[in-house]
Amino acid sequence: MKLLRFGPVGQEKPGVLTTAGLSLDVSAFGEDYDEKFFATDGLTRLAAWLDAQATACPMVPAETRLGPCVARPSKLIAIGLNYRQHGAETGLGTPAEPVFFLKAPSAICGPNDEVILPRNATKLDYEAELAFVIGRRARYVPEAEALGYVAGYTILNDYSERAFQLERGGQWTKGKSADTFAPLGPYLTLAAEVPDPQNLSIWLTVNGESRQNGTTADMLFTLPKLISYVSEFMTLLPGDVITTGSPAGSGVGLHPPQFLQAGDVVELSIGELGGQRQRIVPFRLGE
Amino acid sequence: MKLLRFGPVGQEKPGVLTTAGLSLDVSAFGEDYDEKFFATDGLTRLAAWLDAQATACPMVPAETRLGPCVARPSKLIAIGLNYRQHGAETGLGTPAEPVFFLKAPSAICGPNDEVILPRNATKLDYEAELAFVIGRRARYVPEAEALGYVAGYTILNDYSERAFQLERGGQWTKGKSADTFAPLGPYLTLAAEVPDPQNLSIWLTVNGESRQNGTTADMLFTLPKLISYVSEFMTLLPGDVITTGSPAGSGVGLHPPQFLQAGDVVELSIGELGGQRQRIVPFRLGE
Repeated sequence: MKLLRFGPVGQEKPGVLTTAGLSLDVSAFGEDYDEKFFATDGLTRLAAWLDAQATACPMVPAETRLGPCVARPSKLIAIGLNYRQHGAETGLGTPAEPVFFLKAPSAICGPNDEVILPRNATKLDYEAELAFVIGRRARYVPEAEALGYVAGYTILNDYSERAFQLERGGQWTKGKSADTFAPLGPYLTLAAEVPDPQNLSIWLTVNGESRQNGTTADMLFTLPKLISYVSEFMTLLPGDVITTGSPAGSGVGLHPPQFLQAGDVVELSIGELGGQRQRIVPFRLGE
Repeated sequence: MKLLRFGPVGQEKPGVLTTAGLSLDVSAFGEDYDEKFFATDGLTRLAAWLDAQATACPMVPAETRLGPCVARPSKLIAIGLNYRQHGAETGLGTPAEPVFFLKAPSAICGPNDEVILPRNATKLDYEAELAFVIGRRARYVPEAEALGYVAGYTILNDYSERAFQLERGGQWTKGKSADTFAPLGPYLTLAAEVPDPQNLSIWLTVNGESRQNGTTADMLFTLPKLISYVSEFMTLLPGDVITTGSPAGSGVGLHPPQFLQAGDVVELSIGELGGQRQRIVPFRLGE
């Protein structure tokens, strides 16, 4: 079972993708995939409900927009410089311990939504990343137990405006938090269905040209370390999203650097977690 | 009218402090002070409801815990180095344009809650700050219109663990986001009742000894500039909290630096916005 959300922006309904490949509208279950859902063992309750009700669920209409696969979390935590070559290409080096920052949760959008170039943006960049969702409250979690806190896995494209991030005298969040800078989905694959999250292929193309092509095996800090580490600094709440950094090949690391322009199309995929596709569009008044 | 929230952690109820000085339980209004409340002109609706219903509202019980004065926002945005002397004392200098970072919204607590020293914390520090709450969606807001986006004002004590913030190879958020690192309140004073937010006294004591004693007149970047500036980088949502930086006198700037220890008591106040009082306690298992 995989979780998805569909429908217009801000009015998404919950759905599931069954192991048989059917996309079902589970609005009748009466819950969104939010902090309360995960905190109250919603995954188990939903599975039990589906056993009885699946045949009565309507199908998700074809061609419907997919929203982010979980509701807006309390925190979207992003790990930086977590693949050796990426640290080198950005000129930021290889960290001795994990680097993380927060992206504004209001940046989250659907996996195939248009990505909006902010006004005055000149250095829009992509980063294909394995993301996961926290299943239960986590504080000072030992590494050996850490994967037990993961509800499931998905994909996040960690968009940045590199000039805002690195040249505006502040913290990275300044270039990481614009609306649509965090496409999330297409669905949340439950942890039990991902036997080894450290052995997933990860690729990204721009206008069909390969830009990133790596594997989560190359992370500097693995998921148990990241969960344990972040939980030393703050409490992770059910539904929180952590995205784990990106392999080499982001635009800032090319020679010369190549940034995204309006009209560009970015596609990416990780292992069996599905794929995303975003078209870059300029900011329009009223958005 | 001022907004407050009261009751046990995570089960806060909405209340108001009337101009006559009465604390009323307005649970019967049926809404929390969250994004939806502010987005749907809740302040006006609540005032109208109170005109008819105030006499039927129970009083907030004396000695009740105050919670954060608004519900957990999508974002808690903190401005850094926004008073000239504070930039100098931290050694971080005077910024050419506003510096901001995100604090985890899960760090927010009540104004008089105990503040928990994280494990291995050695450099816990305070910063008394004027905070405000966004009343409506804001993106690319001109300075001249910016104050129209403020629902009201309150106090935030921007706690940091300075070693986590500055010596752990990452972004400031690492030292800014532990649980209880953002006491918020005691109440939200509506914008109309604060004629000049740039002319408020601001003070803080530790164990009764004066540490910070300034005025919001000394901000490098005033509120209209901050709102306009942040709205260039992300969309501010109704209910979002922005805290505007702290005057000189934080522990890291003293000679020698003085950090908080378990048992210390921090008190602070800003203008007519009320006061806060926190006792520092060690982390205990189960928290």
